[in-house]
Amino acid sequence: MVSERERGKLRLRAMTCLAQAGIVLRQEEAEQMEVADFGLGEVETTGLEVVVYANNDRYCAKELVVLPGQTCPQHRHPTVEGRPGKQETFRCRWGEAYLYVPGDPTPNPSARPPSHRARHYTVWHEIILRPGNQYTLAPDTWHWFQGGPQGAIVSEFSSTSTDENDVFLDPEIRRV
Amino acid sequence: MVSERERGKLRLRAMTCLAQAGIVLRQEEAEQMEVADFGLGEVETTGLEVVVYANNDRYCAKELVVLPGQTCPQHRHPTVEGRPGKQETFRCRWGEAYLYVPGDPTPNPSARPPSHRARHYTVWHEIILRPGNQYTLAPDTWHWFQGGPQGAIVSEFSSTSTDENDVFLDPEIRRV
Repeated sequence: MVSERERGKLRLRAMTCLAQAGIVLRQEEAEQMEVADFGLGEVETTGLEVVVYANNDRYCAKELVVLPGQTCPQHRHPTVEGRPGKQETFRCRWGEAYLYVPGDPTPNPSARPPSHRARHYTVWHEIILRPGNQYTLAPDTWHWFQGGPQGAIVSEFSSTSTDENDVFLDPEIRRV
Repeated sequence: MVSERERGKLRLRAMTCLAQAGIVLRQEEAEQMEVADFGLGEVETTGLEVVVYANNDRYCAKELVVLPGQTCPQHRHPTVEGRPGKQETFRCRWGEAYLYVPGDPTPNPSARPPSHRARHYTVWHEIILRPGNQYTLAPDTWHWFQGGPQGAIVSEFSSTSTDENDVFLDPEIRRV
């Protein structure tokens, strides 16, 4: 588990990135920012900061913040009750992030997964996301990403988000 | 019609707003920015600059730029072939915009529609959008908006966008 104190610290670090990017949040959005630790209790290593702007039965929009070296672990959005899983477009706004998807493994990739969990990272085709770059993931595609030296802010545009349906490769992970 | 020269000028004005907001576009995105004149040929008065990040069968995300005093005219997104019209969330990133929707008319509204077309503006409940503010419009809701003194940048998150189905109150308007 992550303490409230630790969550507060990470929210503040994420806010400094957002402020550098010129992205404005209302006070209550900053206070309610999700600090996702994926149930591992090592949130600076495996974690993600999330601001949800909209999530309804038709679309979803979020701001994702990955701090330097912080990793959002490998997962996919499966078909649920016959409905295709979440499709998502990642657009980098600030900083640099390394996104990994199925395909030819990239030699000398920029990111390294947390070493004690490396066996749960199996897709190695690298997409480098810098401001203005974006990438759309088809539903049910394995992916993971990590913040670069300054971290990154990534806008996520997608179909409806249902985090409870996400499938992670690491069996210790609990998303919700 | 709007000349290519005029379009180029408006793209550049929109780019200066985007740059002030810290929003990064790739070169080809800047070059392909839509300058919508709604078929009226008076684009500084009735017009909108649009960058489409994603528009697929599940969701859509755009950056909208309204220049100072520029108006996106009153329209709605109707049901088409039994499918509910576009639902959209406007989130202001920079500047100030005045959005009008059905409801109690706001006394002394901040915007004035183009005077020679004022009869085509009938909803007067004002929502002021400043950075961090957002508003979600249900499908088929009449709405229009105008840029404030500096103009505004508004991120639009929505269901699939099909501009050709939009209904405008002003019969002279041609969207596509």
